[in-house]
Amino acid sequence: MQITEKDLPRPSRPAPTPRNGVDTPALFATIGVVKQQPELARFRFRATNRWIRGTHSRSRMESFFGAGGEHRHAGDFQYDGDHPAVLCGADQGPTPIEFVLHALASCITAGIANIAAARGVTLTAVESTVEGEIDLRGILGISKEVRNGYQNIRASFRIRGDAPAAKLAEIVEQSRARSAVFDILTGQVPVEIAVDAG
Amino acid sequence: MQITEKDLPRPSRPAPTPRNGVDTPALFATIGVVKQQPELARFRFRATNRWIRGTHSRSRMESFFGAGGEHRHAGDFQYDGDHPAVLCGADQGPTPIEFVLHALASCITAGIANIAAARGVTLTAVESTVEGEIDLRGILGISKEVRNGYQNIRASFRIRGDAPAAKLAEIVEQSRARSAVFDILTGQVPVEIAVDAG
Repeated sequence: MQITEKDLPRPSRPAPTPRNGVDTPALFATIGVVKQQPELARFRFRATNRWIRGTHSRSRMESFFGAGGEHRHAGDFQYDGDHPAVLCGADQGPTPIEFVLHALASCITAGIANIAAARGVTLTAVESTVEGEIDLRGILGISKEVRNGYQNIRASFRIRGDAPAAKLAEIVEQSRARSAVFDILTGQVPVEIAVDAG
Repeated sequence: MQITEKDLPRPSRPAPTPRNGVDTPALFATIGVVKQQPELARFRFRATNRWIRGTHSRSRMESFFGAGGEHRHAGDFQYDGDHPAVLCGADQGPTPIEFVLHALASCITAGIANIAAARGVTLTAVESTVEGEIDLRGILGISKEVRNGYQNIRASFRIRGDAPAAKLAEIVEQSRARSAVFDILTGQVPVEIAVDAG
């Protein structure tokens, strides 16, 4: 959501109105409630995955915990992952690391819409291209000097709306600064893996 | 793919055969070629994203560069991302950070299938649940001490096949050790963002 304190309504400002498809009053109200009850901010997201064949598997995102309770998604969200033919896969879905690029683009874009709404800016377009460079000698075990993951990621955003370019650019920057996925990629997340092998 | 040197064929071993839906001979041949021509290992994956409304956006993964040239995916891979209703979104897709969980599960699972095939193990089941904990006070700007991204991720794998439990568990561990997404999450990736604001 990436709203900061200074975006919250103050007596000197007009009341926020819905904009960009964002229910700005509800968003501000949510932030106000979470400020009073910090435990509502604790969320636990989850995905279950099942191997199908070769490098092809399928994940489902059905439910998550947050705001003090369990929630179910409105749709049946299922996603395939696979390796492409050039890597001996069946290309039944994007590669896992392409989903990382989608995660980054959609996270920053969602933040842009929320922040623009909070700042009274009406958007007309937000588009982005995200690219990640990887040297497969890492995961192929050919070189110990090469890391397994992306060596770098570059994202290019194009944003248009009823505000000067500098203000639009600030909205993108604020979204980056508060993006969960940007933090996950540029920071470090402890990952624990448990195995039931029978 | 996550195959290591010790999985490669040696004169003392029988020739690898396809297994688990993995074309093991082609996989070994690919690794052999990349060892001789390291420049073939350089890949650049990409996603394009377009904002739709509110926190809803859609990404496409159409093509990527690798093995010395451009490649197109076999399918039309498009994915929606959104915020859920409890966060004032329209729930038109999973949250961006849920796609990160899918990326981790599908990456390690693809590696498991490849490594098992390389080691002559026939799999019957691989299932996983991946959970990520996040405190939204970070992205809401309510607390400066709370990070924006996941505080931790836990993945539980269940694996079954025609090998002892210890050998199956080793396959999961080897896949983790060579997973691109595991490295992306636990390491740090430089992310550069460019903005065209008109």
